[in-house]
Amino acid sequence: MLTNRREILIEWGDCDPFGIVFFPRYFEYFDACTNALFHKALGFPKAEMLKRFQIAGIPLVQASCNFFVPSSFGDVVSVESCVTKWGTSSFSVQHRLFRGETLAVEGLEKRVWTVRVSGEPTKAKSQAIPKEVIEKFQHRESRTKGDQ
Amino acid sequence: MLTNRREILIEWGDCDPFGIVFFPRYFEYFDACTNALFHKALGFPKAEMLKRFQIAGIPLVQASCNFFVPSSFGDVVSVESCVTKWGTSSFSVQHRLFRGETLAVEGLEKRVWTVRVSGEPTKAKSQAIPKEVIEKFQHRESRTKGDQ
Amino acid sequence: MLTNRREILIEWGDCDPFGIVFFPRYFEYFDACTNALFHKALGFPKAEMLKRFQIAGIPLVQASCNFFVPSSFGDVVSVESCVTKWGTSSFSVQHRLFRGETLAVEGLEKRVWTVRVSGEPTKAKSQAIPKEVIEKFQHRESRTKGDQ
Amino acid sequence: MLTNRREILIEWGDCDPFGIVFFPRYFEYFDACTNALFHKALGFPKAEMLKRFQIAGIPLVQASCNFFVPSSFGDVVSVESCVTKWGTSSFSVQHRLFRGETLAVEGLEKRVWTVRVSGEPTKAKSQAIPKEVIEKFQHRESRTKGDQ
Repeated sequence: MLTNRREILIEWGDCDPFGIVFFPRYFEYFDACTNALFHKALGFPKAEMLKRFQIAGIPLVQASCNFFVPSSFGDVVSVESCVTKWGTSSFSVQHRLFRGETLAVEGLEKRVWTVRVSGEPTKAKSQAIPKEVIEKFQHRESRTKGDQ
Repeated sequence: MLTNRREILIEWGDCDPFGIVFFPRYFEYFDACTNALFHKALGFPKAEMLKRFQIAGIPLVQASCNFFVPSSFGDVVSVESCVTKWGTSSFSVQHRLFRGETLAVEGLEKRVWTVRVSGEPTKAKSQAIPKEVIEKFQHRESRTKGDQ
Repeated sequence: MLTNRREILIEWGDCDPFGIVFFPRYFEYFDACTNALFHKALGFPKAEMLKRFQIAGIPLVQASCNFFVPSSFGDVVSVESCVTKWGTSSFSVQHRLFRGETLAVEGLEKRVWTVRVSGEPTKAKSQAIPKEVIEKFQHRESRTKGDQ
Repeated sequence: MLTNRREILIEWGDCDPFGIVFFPRYFEYFDACTNALFHKALGFPKAEMLKRFQIAGIPLVQASCNFFVPSSFGDVVSVESCVTKWGTSSFSVQHRLFRGETLAVEGLEKRVWTVRVSGEPTKAKSQAIPKEVIEKFQHRESRTKGDQ
């Protein structure tokens, strides 16, 4: 399973009057981590991905988080992200955010490979995920395994 | 069940390059709706709630959303929020966001009644929710029913 | 001068660990206020404005704020917005945010009437603001005066 | 002049329906850059700075940006930040955001060294900036010069 790991510095502006991360920011972090995971798998950034596969994006149909331990500004956390399931046009991404060794937040996203409906700028419909995309995740996976 | 209803105008800055609401914004909307629900039940705003009950906040241990229909800038949506379960120190809030008659997003939050650990500015622990708080939700509920 | 007035409830999630509004949120408020001002002047929302005038947006070339008095979650503030200057393709918007009678924040935006460069999805160039648009601001202004 | 340089990856969620960075995000970037600059100068993070100097924060009295060139998701930009002026209790920070060699955004912040008013959780007043703080900026500066 191809995994991407990203370090995140918690910023002052991400925290609420309690002094801890305002929870919607975790969903923002994880969105960025999903894009980073695809970048790692495909070898090019999201703008290029949208262009090559003629998609409008990979919007969510479901998102959830379990918050175990709070974090605060100045903390450096690390997020491990991987695709846990490929459907025909949907897929699931798991994010695990660690403070040191401690699992602090766990997130799950279900996303859909999505194209625009022509002439309808904000409408969209699902489309089958290209085999090429899924294979790049598996190919990388094998190579990673091979490296060990 | 005491329910609060709030209209939200989707702003340009809440939307992503796809042209639809960037999904973490829904969690922000719902956080604001939870605060509005408590305001309605208690009769005073969050700042006053923190002071009176000597709590640091009502942070989340769990949050999830199902996204059925996207929204875009200029849309006016309405959110219905209610507490669906009271535990000893935790409680669950349900949010249903409608575009007209259509249920567009459904959110669920599990939150904890939380006090600071003295001398530890970012540490916190759960505490039993005062009966007075739960009763205000039920009291209002009865009155609302009586109004009908 | 056509002026729009908008009430804003400061949300918990807009505030920082200091307990006051995280200053970039004021720029978000003001962006929303500019869109509301155009909506009032033109009579239709931003999505319609982009479509009718075939523009990509009204992005900024300059933004500034003076912060006189802080605000915190639960505060209800009101923002008065107006266009203070029309150039050929640029225009200036002033926002004044009040807490009660007190001017708390003053913002200034310089924006440009902008069309896409065909074939370049993220590139854009300025274009002359249609007379029709400027007149709607002036027309409304006269009517508002006439109403008094 | 002690300067901090930080690379920023523009995220999908930072961009608006135009496809370019929603301008308040630049102010967020710059806020984080100011904190990073102080971290570099002092040798410890903001949480420690607040504790040691018994301050509540370094809130802004003024912020402004000139936007020369837009950026979009996937772009990696770099920001150079430095304090350009020290007053008694206020100071000015300049941020210059580059896309490659091109100056894309220039920001200016005027901030105040601020302590809480006891018993008033959201009230605050300015205080003289400790010499020790200003010297650390100058000391580092000399060393940086010495390195050349």
